[in-house]
Amino acid sequence: MLELTILNNKERIDPAAATATLPKIKSDPMAGWYNLPLEAPDLSKILSAAKMIQAQSAYLVCIGVGGSYLGHRAIIEALEPNSPTKVLYAGNSLSPHALKAVFDEIGDADFSVNVISKSGTTTEPAIAFRLFKQKLIEKYGESEAPRRIYATTDASTGILHDEAVAASYATFTVPENIGGRYSVLTDVGLLPLAVAGVDIKELLNGAKQMAEHKTPAIRYGALRAALAAGNYDTEILATFEPRLQLFGEWWKQLFGESEGKDGRGIFPASVTYTTDLHSLGQYVQEGRRNIFETVLDFAEPEHPDLTIPSSPDNLDNLNYLAGESLAHINHQALVATIKAHSATIPVVQLKLPRISAGTLGALIYFFELSCAISAKLQGVNPFDQPGVEAYKKEMFKLLGRP
Amino acid sequence: MLELTILNNKERIDPAAATATLPKIKSDPMAGWYNLPLEAPDLSKILSAAKMIQAQSAYLVCIGVGGSYLGHRAIIEALEPNSPTKVLYAGNSLSPHALKAVFDEIGDADFSVNVISKSGTTTEPAIAFRLFKQKLIEKYGESEAPRRIYATTDASTGILHDEAVAASYATFTVPENIGGRYSVLTDVGLLPLAVAGVDIKELLNGAKQMAEHKTPAIRYGALRAALAAGNYDTEILATFEPRLQLFGEWWKQLFGESEGKDGRGIFPASVTYTTDLHSLGQYVQEGRRNIFETVLDFAEPEHPDLTIPSSPDNLDNLNYLAGESLAHINHQALVATIKAHSATIPVVQLKLPRISAGTLGALIYFFELSCAISAKLQGVNPFDQPGVEAYKKEMFKLLGRP
Repeated sequence: MLELTILNNKERIDPAAATATLPKIKSDPMAGWYNLPLEAPDLSKILSAAKMIQAQSAYLVCIGVGGSYLGHRAIIEALEPNSPTKVLYAGNSLSPHALKAVFDEIGDADFSVNVISKSGTTTEPAIAFRLFKQKLIEKYGESEAPRRIYATTDASTGILHDEAVAASYATFTVPENIGGRYSVLTDVGLLPLAVAGVDIKELLNGAKQMAEHKTPAIRYGALRAALAAGNYDTEILATFEPRLQLFGEWWKQLFGESEGKDGRGIFPASVTYTTDLHSLGQYVQEGRRNIFETVLDFAEPEHPDLTIPSSPDNLDNLNYLAGESLAHINHQALVATIKAHSATIPVVQLKLPRISAGTLGALIYFFELSCAISAKLQGVNPFDQPGVEAYKKEMFKLLGRP
Repeated sequence: MLELTILNNKERIDPAAATATLPKIKSDPMAGWYNLPLEAPDLSKILSAAKMIQAQSAYLVCIGVGGSYLGHRAIIEALEPNSPTKVLYAGNSLSPHALKAVFDEIGDADFSVNVISKSGTTTEPAIAFRLFKQKLIEKYGESEAPRRIYATTDASTGILHDEAVAASYATFTVPENIGGRYSVLTDVGLLPLAVAGVDIKELLNGAKQMAEHKTPAIRYGALRAALAAGNYDTEILATFEPRLQLFGEWWKQLFGESEGKDGRGIFPASVTYTTDLHSLGQYVQEGRRNIFETVLDFAEPEHPDLTIPSSPDNLDNLNYLAGESLAHINHQALVATIKAHSATIPVVQLKLPRISAGTLGALIYFFELSCAISAKLQGVNPFDQPGVEAYKKEMFKLLGRP
């Protein structure tokens, strides 16, 4: 399902050392994601809740930030599945403008809310949840509103858990042994994905295939650690499809938050080509040589019927492309880019058949595992994020939190 | 209009050296943008074409890539102005999926096309133009279609110029002394902006104010060069408003393409906070210390009426925020972030009154000038992009271009 090729790497990679991290990763108290796809989870509760939401609501408002929203939103944007219910996102920023845009889109339509927060104390989703709860009560009344609230939270503690119990919300679980950025294949991602019409069985099956064949992830993790040690400090994830932009954002959180500590890590950036070949492409080709690039290569052409027509006058000199599909030209641009960039920096090519629930599930597991390996090899904890507290401390002081 | 504050910089900045670059920049054959806002351009042709497009079309399809689209699209997304005509974008990638989405959105509605390309030979816009021209001919016929095409191109040469003359398209000019990434305040940006309902006079007036007060841009350019020399190799542009995301993309092209050459430059990245405080925030706070951050701070609150309601049970412990506006909380998060990040890396705070055509015009000129200064001080040419040819050469070989 996934074929990994490394071009122009001059650092010595050590798959044996990477393999040696696996038992340590697996036994970590936060490694619940490690065997998850192999455990064939029972999806019936999620699928029946999704059916209920689809029957009741034109919109599902997913309230969450960071790992509580990025993964599922990225998958929905990549797959554009069909569903009677559109999934909207709120509580991932403090922008009043963004929040009003969600209110405006819903208008008078029926909606439900999926609030996703392990503790319930994170400011952005907590504020959005208070506001959407108010809207639900205004629209449906005090007794009906709680039936439209789905809380994905800790199974036994926390203020959101306690509220959910007191108010009898339907509840789903953020597993205590899986951190936010590794949680997309749990209830955190699966409920909104099912509502949006994504085939979550295929998604989990793709992840399972990668969990059963860990070699590419081990090699990628080993390579990243070698490059980090060789003073490569920036990695660029490149795709050739604009609707994968948010998948790049998911990837950036996973790697940035897992590795960026103790003055270490590789800064994660993402680009959409060919668009950004006319932007960051110049830097990638000729800027500081401390960067490397990972390219997602989906081989199967999309819309092969969309071809370049012939032109009788050929004023634009494009007749040499007449009859070719746009997908073919896009893929040739990918091959050319890998050739041009790998002449001067290390490039990793990740080949997959097509953009689907299965390949995205595979990529998610591939990146989760390689990230844990890469962080371990760099000597940092892949599962904590102590630096996120610094601005919060300052903010709570300014806001006068008791 | 713009107030610049530098926090926690330990490198010696040299505004005198930066000021000394100004005559060299001004006299460069590609420095047409330098005095542009001071020249009070005649906007009547643009405004009347915009009026015509608004009267004739529900959609204007802007076809262009890189500097031919990023700036105006970023301004339209930031301002969300009102207009009878919606501006759509095509020809900025080779994705068949993205192109079909534009076809689908237009459906049977009336549309016009603004093709923006200095030469007409760039592959992405050339292909999209050929396809949309075909659509125009199918819908309006051979004689009417050209009246719906607006070509922004070189004033005297190039295949798009020649086609425009032969087919009698309305034409607008890409000035020969302004490169793509410095061109948003020329016809390149002004025509689509006027169609979208942006006040282009206010935009140019904002730029004029910065052109008349160059001190902040000189200081920022000098600071960047000092940080580059001090081995800071990554700059992060941070905003606290999601609808500025594409403005970050414009900024990334400007700096990445101007500086990233001869193995030099500062890698430009952008983030949207508070969203990305739950993603890249960890890296910014505790990762490798070779990064610095520039924060756009728009002081005036948006939607001050959107406040946090009080809750009788206070299950979420948010009553300490009751009555506060979301805008105020967002701004306190900004202040807190600057404090937390500047404890460990250099931070530049750029204060502006609000997100408006005027402040965006000011920021555009501010960044253009500081970028030219910063690149000059790093010893590279701010106005070329030789590295962009490498992948094109490979691609044309693969595609068999004659």
